[in-house]
Amino acid sequence: MAWFRSLIRVSGIKPRNRAPNPFSLASLASLSTEATNKYSGLGPTVPAEKPRVVVVGSGWAACRLMKALDTNLYDVVCVSPRNHMVFTPLLASTCVGTLEFRSVAEPISRIQPAISREPGSYFFLANCTGIDGDNHSVHCETATDGPDTLDPWKFKIAYDKLVIALGAQPLTFGIQGVKEHAIFLREVYHAQEIRRKLLLNLMLSDVPGISEEEKSRLLHCVVVGGGPTGVEFSGELSDFITKDVRQTHAHVKDYIRVTLIEANEILSSFDDRLRHYATKQLTKSGVRLVRGIVKDVKAQKLVLNDGTEVPYGLLVWSTGVGPSPLVNSMELPKSPGGRIGVDEWLHVPSMQDVFAIGDCSGFLESTGKPTLPALAQVAERQGKYLSHLLNRIGKAGGGHANGANGMELGDPFVYKHLGSMATIGRYKALVDLRQSKEAKGLSMAGFVSWFIWRSAYLTRVLSWRNRFYVAINWLTTFVFGRDISRI
Amino acid sequence: MAWFRSLIRVSGIKPRNRAPNPFSLASLASLSTEATNKYSGLGPTVPAEKPRVVVVGSGWAACRLMKALDTNLYDVVCVSPRNHMVFTPLLASTCVGTLEFRSVAEPISRIQPAISREPGSYFFLANCTGIDGDNHSVHCETATDGPDTLDPWKFKIAYDKLVIALGAQPLTFGIQGVKEHAIFLREVYHAQEIRRKLLLNLMLSDVPGISEEEKSRLLHCVVVGGGPTGVEFSGELSDFITKDVRQTHAHVKDYIRVTLIEANEILSSFDDRLRHYATKQLTKSGVRLVRGIVKDVKAQKLVLNDGTEVPYGLLVWSTGVGPSPLVNSMELPKSPGGRIGVDEWLHVPSMQDVFAIGDCSGFLESTGKPTLPALAQVAERQGKYLSHLLNRIGKAGGGHANGANGMELGDPFVYKHLGSMATIGRYKALVDLRQSKEAKGLSMAGFVSWFIWRSAYLTRVLSWRNRFYVAINWLTTFVFGRDISRI
Repeated sequence: MAWFRSLIRVSGIKPRNRAPNPFSLASLASLSTEATNKYSGLGPTVPAEKPRVVVVGSGWAACRLMKALDTNLYDVVCVSPRNHMVFTPLLASTCVGTLEFRSVAEPISRIQPAISREPGSYFFLANCTGIDGDNHSVHCETATDGPDTLDPWKFKIAYDKLVIALGAQPLTFGIQGVKEHAIFLREVYHAQEIRRKLLLNLMLSDVPGISEEEKSRLLHCVVVGGGPTGVEFSGELSDFITKDVRQTHAHVKDYIRVTLIEANEILSSFDDRLRHYATKQLTKSGVRLVRGIVKDVKAQKLVLNDGTEVPYGLLVWSTGVGPSPLVNSMELPKSPGGRIGVDEWLHVPSMQDVFAIGDCSGFLESTGKPTLPALAQVAERQGKYLSHLLNRIGKAGGGHANGANGMELGDPFVYKHLGSMATIGRYKALVDLRQSKEAKGLSMAGFVSWFIWRSAYLTRVLSWRNRFYVAINWLTTFVFGRDISRI
Repeated sequence: MAWFRSLIRVSGIKPRNRAPNPFSLASLASLSTEATNKYSGLGPTVPAEKPRVVVVGSGWAACRLMKALDTNLYDVVCVSPRNHMVFTPLLASTCVGTLEFRSVAEPISRIQPAISREPGSYFFLANCTGIDGDNHSVHCETATDGPDTLDPWKFKIAYDKLVIALGAQPLTFGIQGVKEHAIFLREVYHAQEIRRKLLLNLMLSDVPGISEEEKSRLLHCVVVGGGPTGVEFSGELSDFITKDVRQTHAHVKDYIRVTLIEANEILSSFDDRLRHYATKQLTKSGVRLVRGIVKDVKAQKLVLNDGTEVPYGLLVWSTGVGPSPLVNSMELPKSPGGRIGVDEWLHVPSMQDVFAIGDCSGFLESTGKPTLPALAQVAERQGKYLSHLLNRIGKAGGGHANGANGMELGDPFVYKHLGSMATIGRYKALVDLRQSKEAKGLSMAGFVSWFIWRSAYLTRVLSWRNRFYVAINWLTTFVFGRDISRI
């Protein structure tokens, strides 16, 4: 079997014999003391084999890249702790049952079928723990979670080209208690947790013996962060309350409230007019907008900078994103926000054959270009650009490690902003088509832009299966209301 | 608010002042020492109010009853740790993604909308911990699970009529390790766990560094119990392997195997001819049938009576059901299998206004009738019968506690078996239309009966929403294959 042919034991190589590795992590240092016979991997490709592109991550950037990579030229190996891509713009809708979880999750093997079929292409359910640029290899550890936790094992994968697309992680600004008590909204399991908690609170608040105060607390949904995610989630939530809770939980409908806390202005990247429209609409639909800075988060209440205590039953945290731990640990030139510096071709200048795309990367200041925003739109465009670049390199015979040295890379990556969109509840959305915050351009609000928003997202969901499911979900929500079974 | 009018604090009543209660549990005895101010509830109804039917459980029997109960005559209070009914005959299909989890879960408030709308009707997310027949009340404790665990609190509900529909729980026959290592197939979360584990094992077995032996173990799916559930799950699993795994996990397709272990014959309640057909079809589709008795279950292997060790990656246990802990603790006349004895009208003879339906009850030997099988079909028919009986009592003015004493109850419950069905994989099913095991009658196997099976279940799914979703799920599975995102 091809799998066994390419499986080369590297357990004999002890860390002390390796060339110095600027990216080694503390966890790797202790490797040699652990069961070394568990340390295997995929060895370097030989010239007769297809070159191997290793993609670390499974978000917008990684998946867009894998989708368009020519698998006649390359073997593709993807390393990620989740086997699907999350269609993030629709994630907020799944929390309240407007859409189903599966409709926004796209398995990687559906995005790039070669990964599950070609003998040299793989998906590995693992975390990347370090990158060894000198030896052209990445270090990985299998990822299992929850009730299925197994002893992880480590392995290495040699790459010809490496694409770092590790994304970003939610920022907590060092505020105590956020990780313990708040729920983020980045992954499907976050949305599942929010939904389970919301339905639990609705049911518990109806049980005899509960005090008025506790009832109000359980049904107080607090959203921290007034960016598009926070606003979209608040809008969906107020829709759910107005349309569904009044019918499915009529006993407690007068107790449920939504508060959106933001330190500055909501939707700060949007046009002034749109921002005012959003504020008006959210207020009208019952969302209380509070200007404040969170100082401390406890199990059932949070404390603002001015000392105000806010009891909550559900706390959703979406105050922006920062670099992931692995990106943080890498000793590379980075942007002020901690994003990996790349050149005009999305290549990491100090490392051979390594590229970085999506939220984890940013244009180096040395190139004179500003860091691009951490948006799905940017990541998607970068993934697409890099797939074309790698295909071109592959066709020119430069696919193998160090094979593209001195090669002409062609046109650099140029980002053209197509506009920003955010929904603010039922049949209402904002569409800002300006190129940047300062520019002039078209901005729209209301039903027309809601329709544009829905259509735009529907055609962007990658597979036909999920396009179909999203349409079916919207139809059934419209006809039958949202599903409230807590499974 | 009506809710507060009917909320009567009963914390003053200490257990020692109550009349002796034959059904009190150990947990209730310590009640008075706990925070008594948390012990409230719904007090007895007054004659001017609608009488209250309390339903304990949310399975086939409970839900069929609530659906048909006349809410102009009664207030309905349902107590259950889950807020939905599970459409059990289709549960096996959700484990491998043929159907979605939500398609087989029906929220109780969709089955009986009055529960969420009428001021005196409620659904309480709680476990019933004891029944106080002398005081016409049930003792409950709120139920929260997983990451949302909260301190539970206790409350009481006074009933005019009580319907015990607690169902049954899987039997382990005292075999060590079953609860820890095997997964049952009774609830949606069981199916979710099976799906997550199956997909995890498929992915882990593809990671470099795994031994041949471990790979075979991870991909060995063992089903214990050859009843309809075990056979249906084995069939779905072999379908999934043949149709989907070969494409979505081509690297490991030759390692995955399904073994069905049964102490006697598979599908023992079916016609001989059908049984042979099932055996042939399962074997043909790659399921290995093993005659054996499980002695011991460990984390990664089980041991048979003859000492054979069977390593497994996934272990599904479906060897039949027995009474739940609360039913076990009740000191009532029961059938040899531990099911509550009822008379011809499904009434518990020794308790006023108490009925028992579904898997938790059985005909008393004293009535000369055999105990009915623990089937969804029986539960559904009993729920329907009892709803009509209670509606008749209510119309005659006997709805309140002790109001039906001496009343003529009309026709007794008679069960007529409509036949048994079981699928055995793609486009194949068994339909046995005989009234009992000994009787002669129509039996069918193959595509025609598969079609009947699908149609029968499709029209039995209670809401139009879920009928629609099941049809859509089947259609998409047919067109696009099963979904494999592990969320």
